[in-house]
Amino acid sequence: MLGGSRQAGDTLDLMPSSTPTPTPIAYTEAEIAGVTFDGNGLVPAIIQETGTGTVLMMGWMNEASLRRTLETGRTWFWSRSRKEYWCKGETSGDRQYVRGAAYDCDADCLLFEVEQEGRGACHTGERSCFFRAFGSGADPGPR
Amino acid sequence: MLGGSRQAGDTLDLMPSSTPTPTPIAYTEAEIAGVTFDGNGLVPAIIQETGTGTVLMMGWMNEASLRRTLETGRTWFWSRSRKEYWCKGETSGDRQYVRGAAYDCDADCLLFEVEQEGRGACHTGERSCFFRAFGSGADPGPR
Repeated sequence: MLGGSRQAGDTLDLMPSSTPTPTPIAYTEAEIAGVTFDGNGLVPAIIQETGTGTVLMMGWMNEASLRRTLETGRTWFWSRSRKEYWCKGETSGDRQYVRGAAYDCDADCLLFEVEQEGRGACHTGERSCFFRAFGSGADPGPR
Repeated sequence: MLGGSRQAGDTLDLMPSSTPTPTPIAYTEAEIAGVTFDGNGLVPAIIQETGTGTVLMMGWMNEASLRRTLETGRTWFWSRSRKEYWCKGETSGDRQYVRGAAYDCDADCLLFEVEQEGRGACHTGERSCFFRAFGSGADPGPR
């Protein structure tokens, strides 16, 4: 076969066409240095779904997980309870591919626009973690 | 004039038709008791614009400001630097009228959908506080 033609068995043919591609986000050292981390070295990161605008979840990042998120194009958080880094969807398959990254006027909160793979962002199976409204009569306790 | 007819000079006629109406949000004591406040008694509150889905800002609430927000239908925060309650837009006129209120799966983050009055949510004059993207070359320092 000629030129750019693909053959059956090429890796490209085996990948589902819906698999998103991780894309690194450019950043400067001045931007990282400008971020205000709290007393525990953390900054809240809001995760919003690209296209729909749905707020999916909020997680915490330290400087290393922020860098890893920007460099890999996947969302990396710091778990305050488990005291370890975690990459969203690494276990569940519900991965997040970063499509935009911003910081607020005080540089003490981050906002990531992501392509959400799989069922969604919440460990309960809901697409968004914010599925319970005040006054809805839903079980109020943490799950 | 008869029945429900309005007369010129009625209060209703003097109000600009674009002024939003604050609407209290129903809640239960169990819902408030279920919210997890941090060691400083605070919980992050994400503010999203209704309709557009734009994430406008993130602020901190304690239990009292959360109750006040739900009861008045306007956003009330706790300022960690000034150590005082503040109602968004009370000085600037850029008020926020709550149209929805939710809490996440861990009940340690809140999400409010608001109708944003005036210029926007940011004290810089931008509509959203998240107007600076990583890699955009914008001044990274806090304003």
